[in-house]
Amino acid sequence: MSEADSPRSLLETFENPYPNRDYVMETVCPEFTSVCPKTGQPDFGTLIITYIPDQVCFELKSLKLYLQSYRNVGAFYEDVTNRIMDDLVAVTDPRWLELRAEFTPRGGISSTITVSHHKAGNEE
Amino acid sequence: MSEADSPRSLLETFENPYPNRDYVMETVCPEFTSVCPKTGQPDFGTLIITYIPDQVCFELKSLKLYLQSYRNVGAFYEDVTNRIMDDLVAVTDPRWLELRAEFTPRGGISSTITVSHHKAGNEE
Amino acid sequence: MSEADSPRSLLETFENPYPNRDYVMETVCPEFTSVCPKTGQPDFGTLIITYIPDQVCFELKSLKLYLQSYRNVGAFYEDVTNRIMDDLVAVTDPRWLELRAEFTPRGGISSTITVSHHKAGNEE
Amino acid sequence: MSEADSPRSLLETFENPYPNRDYVMETVCPEFTSVCPKTGQPDFGTLIITYIPDQVCFELKSLKLYLQSYRNVGAFYEDVTNRIMDDLVAVTDPRWLELRAEFTPRGGISSTITVSHHKAGNEE
Amino acid sequence: MSEADSPRSLLETFENPYPNRDYVMETVCPEFTSVCPKTGQPDFGTLIITYIPDQVCFELKSLKLYLQSYRNVGAFYEDVTNRIMDDLVAVTDPRWLELRAEFTPRGGISSTITVSHHKAGNEE
Amino acid sequence: MSEADSPRSLLETFENPYPNRDYVMETVCPEFTSVCPKTGQPDFGTLIITYIPDQVCFELKSLKLYLQSYRNVGAFYEDVTNRIMDDLVAVTDPRWLELRAEFTPRGGISSTITVSHHKAGNEE
Amino acid sequence: MSEADSPRSLLETFENPYPNRDYVMETVCPEFTSVCPKTGQPDFGTLIITYIPDQVCFELKSLKLYLQSYRNVGAFYEDVTNRIMDDLVAVTDPRWLELRAEFTPRGGISSTITVSHHKAGNEE
Amino acid sequence: MSEADSPRSLLETFENPYPNRDYVMETVCPEFTSVCPKTGQPDFGTLIITYIPDQVCFELKSLKLYLQSYRNVGAFYEDVTNRIMDDLVAVTDPRWLELRAEFTPRGGISSTITVSHHKAGNEE
Amino acid sequence: MSEADSPRSLLETFENPYPNRDYVMETVCPEFTSVCPKTGQPDFGTLIITYIPDQVCFELKSLKLYLQSYRNVGAFYEDVTNRIMDDLVAVTDPRWLELRAEFTPRGGISSTITVSHHKAGNEE
Amino acid sequence: MSEADSPRSLLETFENPYPNRDYVMETVCPEFTSVCPKTGQPDFGTLIITYIPDQVCFELKSLKLYLQSYRNVGAFYEDVTNRIMDDLVAVTDPRWLELRAEFTPRGGISSTITVSHHKAGNEE
Ligand SMILES: [Ca+2]
Ligand SMILES: [Ca+2]
Ligand SMILES: [Ca+2]
Ligand SMILES: [Ca+2]
Ligand SMILES: [Ca+2]
Ligand SMILES: [Ca+2]
Ligand SMILES: [Ca+2]
Ligand SMILES: [Ca+2]
Ligand SMILES: [Ca+2]
Ligand SMILES: [Ca+2]
Ligand SMILES: [Ca+2]
Ligand SMILES: [Ca+2]
Ligand SMILES: [Ca+2]
Ligand SMILES: [Ca+2]
Ligand SMILES: [Ca+2]
Ligand SMILES: [Ca+2]
Repeated sequence: MSEADSPRSLLETFENPYPNRDYVMETVCPEFTSVCPKTGQPDFGTLIITYIPDQVCFELKSLKLYLQSYRNVGAFYEDVTNRIMDDLVAVTDPRWLELRAEFTPRGGISSTITVSHHKAGNEE
Repeated sequence: MSEADSPRSLLETFENPYPNRDYVMETVCPEFTSVCPKTGQPDFGTLIITYIPDQVCFELKSLKLYLQSYRNVGAFYEDVTNRIMDDLVAVTDPRWLELRAEFTPRGGISSTITVSHHKAGNEE
Repeated sequence: MSEADSPRSLLETFENPYPNRDYVMETVCPEFTSVCPKTGQPDFGTLIITYIPDQVCFELKSLKLYLQSYRNVGAFYEDVTNRIMDDLVAVTDPRWLELRAEFTPRGGISSTITVSHHKAGNEE
Repeated sequence: MSEADSPRSLLETFENPYPNRDYVMETVCPEFTSVCPKTGQPDFGTLIITYIPDQVCFELKSLKLYLQSYRNVGAFYEDVTNRIMDDLVAVTDPRWLELRAEFTPRGGISSTITVSHHKAGNEE
Repeated sequence: MSEADSPRSLLETFENPYPNRDYVMETVCPEFTSVCPKTGQPDFGTLIITYIPDQVCFELKSLKLYLQSYRNVGAFYEDVTNRIMDDLVAVTDPRWLELRAEFTPRGGISSTITVSHHKAGNEE
Repeated sequence: MSEADSPRSLLETFENPYPNRDYVMETVCPEFTSVCPKTGQPDFGTLIITYIPDQVCFELKSLKLYLQSYRNVGAFYEDVTNRIMDDLVAVTDPRWLELRAEFTPRGGISSTITVSHHKAGNEE
Repeated sequence: MSEADSPRSLLETFENPYPNRDYVMETVCPEFTSVCPKTGQPDFGTLIITYIPDQVCFELKSLKLYLQSYRNVGAFYEDVTNRIMDDLVAVTDPRWLELRAEFTPRGGISSTITVSHHKAGNEE
Repeated sequence: MSEADSPRSLLETFENPYPNRDYVMETVCPEFTSVCPKTGQPDFGTLIITYIPDQVCFELKSLKLYLQSYRNVGAFYEDVTNRIMDDLVAVTDPRWLELRAEFTPRGGISSTITVSHHKAGNEE
Repeated sequence: MSEADSPRSLLETFENPYPNRDYVMETVCPEFTSVCPKTGQPDFGTLIITYIPDQVCFELKSLKLYLQSYRNVGAFYEDVTNRIMDDLVAVTDPRWLELRAEFTPRGGISSTITVSHHKAGNEE
Repeated sequence: MSEADSPRSLLETFENPYPNRDYVMETVCPEFTSVCPKTGQPDFGTLIITYIPDQVCFELKSLKLYLQSYRNVGAFYEDVTNRIMDDLVAVTDPRWLELRAEFTPRGGISSTITVSHHKAGNEE
């Protein structure tokens, strides 16, 4: 998937209604599916997004459509997880965000990737 | 929902019978429902309110009626959670309050929002 | 319930047989019932009393009769919990005591109150 | 098993798509089997590999084939665990890697071996 | 609710794609809510519909909208359950249909209603 | 409790909205309490009422008030269970009714009583 | 234990308040204790009594005292279970009665005895 | 999906190695996904196939590819379940086959379809 | 183990105190151990004995000693289970007896043997 | 695998020590592994053998070695299950035998095969 094909533009945001307050939102997406670039077989996983929004929040229906856009995309676990991470951070510029991707077994082997981001000035 | 339509006035309080003592009350409301402003579909969730009252306590039947007033109101999760937070804090001015809102899945995606408030001079 | 009507005198104690040692006693009372002062309807709850006795211990049969005396008394959750707390502390003067009151749902909403007491010189 | 017979060359890698970011990948392999060098009987176990990749990632299908190459190899638990550790570290040169090997019971006794590696300059 | 106000017309059907075969479909709707005609308070429940379609099937999105139409309707449990039963039977004329309605507690009391229908000539 | 003191009159009914159909309603009442006639101590229990209504249904709020009327009444388990059975049958004249009363332990001993009624012509 | 020492006389009954109706009462007694006649060690068990009373019911406090009278009695499991069975049947002459005695482990071995009685003319 | 587009041809079989014996094979496929023809949104479900093969067995890798061919196909639950049923029966002509399809929630509503087939002369 | 070495004589009985009544006794022995005759390794298992005694009962302490006598005896599962069965039947001549022996895994394989006996004239 | 390569000869038996009695033995083998003939990948499964021996019993250590002989054998699930079935039946000629083979997921799909055998004259 080239950057030009990035579905980042599908992610819509709305103004954080309470930007003066730190609050945490956790979103669980158990129906993520993409395609293995090596075998062409579909992969399945659960994405768990936890973040403290800053000036904007991601809109949930657009998140659903954004994640569905990976349905027929071929990408390694490491690539797709970090790409989604990049898109979420780029679009919402959050104070803090963690993405955890739990993939179902393939060949008797299962994998989970966890990545997190702190905005400068928001480290714990 | 404009501020003028706020159901905050539905929240009744009574004098904290033991204001000289810090104690914690946790209230679980599993029947919260409002309406998605984007789709017009009903949303459902469980609200968990935990607080240390200061001079007043919220009255439970008025809390029930207050929460029921959201039944046909359209609001994003982030908005409705913070609005209820604001109303609970404004009306009870508690020493500490945490609100956790767990929403049921929509489009295969579920969200939980957690927000907390410390009165000045009551930080841990 | 005026202070004059307090059932505190029902609570009997006996000499702590091992006052030189800190030990913890937890007592679970799942059959507490009183009356809602607003609706006249009965309330039900479980009280969990945990304490480190000092010079005296409360006697369990007297505790049962003491709690039964609330059967037809009207009081808010916050009031009745703190009143029982006060009575237990006044009568046993414990080194530490925690009272947790878990009330059954009313109008789809359930509440739990937790309050604790440290005798001066017994803080953790 | 002599070093010459090492299946290390089966492990393939690909370029870490996000080398500028520390992220954690956990891979669970519940179908590991080798042979006890003393009895000639098969051993069974679960391998859990957790690592922060540096410049390369191990490719999962090659990991599966690499682990399958132990199917008819005779080696003690301690030997096989450390040998796999060595191969994973040699091939991926990770910032951090932990290998946990949980073997099924033999003669009513079960064993688990855990070993970890920090690249110089990546200690916590 | 008069018959004229019945939301029956919201229920859409489509031609059973396999009418020559008996098959069973079970649909679970955990977000049903209506209003108590006596107290004006909202009721909540889970509806479980199990049926063998004959010539038509109910369409699931229309079922959702049909059930949502009860959101602000006042009706006793017995009435609303049988009314939904009547509508489902009238619209789909199924070979067999069972409706189970599990309502959440009110005043410390919870209720479940079960009703079933066999088309003439389809008794077990 | 003499028959004259019977709270039977508290039980209100409403016309069965669907008398032409056999359906089953199960009602669970976990907050029943009465008084032991021998010791004067409160008893607690859960009542489970299952019935097929005929021409009338019992109204749930009146059932709650009816059951609350036993709060300070002294009666043996066998007596109170059968008395409630008689009242439910007398007031609703159901096609079938089963009452199960599960009492909490007293003196380390717990009891459950089950009784059922078939209207003539409705035996299984 | 000779028959003369039998504690049968401790069992009190009261008139069945509803002799015209078959109903089932199950009583669970988890604190039964007696003494092993061979080792002098205490035995512990749970007795479960299920019966359909005829003209009289056993009174629960007298049952508790009756069972407590075995505290220092030496008797084999088989003996004590059947003796209690005989006493319950002799005193209440029930339509049906089942006694299940579950004894806790001794020397790593646990036992359960089940015995039942049908009054002539009450067989299933 | 017209019959011409049917992926039935993807299903490969091999000769039943033991046709003289009745045996049962149950296959669980938790990663089925297709598309809702009304909303264009992806559906997810688990298929459970249980059958007694006659002269041929379905080959599992071809079953996987066959089911994956529904990934971008729009079809109602009832249609897709019966279509898969038809394909499995047509290709394997089994002595008996049951298909159970459990779909994940959509709009807060979840559905399960069960269908079975007996070859003439193989009824139970 | 020759018949001459049989520990049958360790099994003591006592007169059934209630021979006129059919009652069931279930005895669970989770600490049985013997030796594998092939490998010399210890075997472990749980024996569950259920029986209706006739004229005599086995005495539990003697059962324990009897079972302990197998501690250093080498015997196959099938042999030891049936031998114990024979001994129990020979010594108590019961109306009915079932023995279930659940052995713990050996070489990754676990076994359970169940055998039962009906005295002539006591078949179900 | 040709019949000539059959590991049947590895299965050893010993004389049934109690051929005059019907008894049931269940043996669970959770560490079965073979190779997929199509992909060359290892398969893993649990075999559950339940049988009533006639004149001979299979010896458990030989069963383990027999099952281990499939470690590098390529065979479809249906083939390997029925082949083991045939071998067990041929070698032990049991009164009754059931084999259940539960295979771990491959490509997100898992399978279980169940087959049983009754000796002529031993049908239920
Ligand atoms: Ca969290
Ligand atoms: Ca987390
Ligand atoms: Ca909390
Ligand atoms: Ca404690
Ligand atoms: Ca505590
Ligand atoms: Ca707390
Ligand atoms: Ca770890
Ligand atoms: Ca059902
Ligand atoms: Ca029921
Ligand atoms: Ca029942
Ligand atoms: Ca029973
Ligand atoms: Ca099945
Ligand atoms: Ca089924
Ligand atoms: Ca039993
Ligand atoms: Ca059994
Ligand atoms: Ca079985």
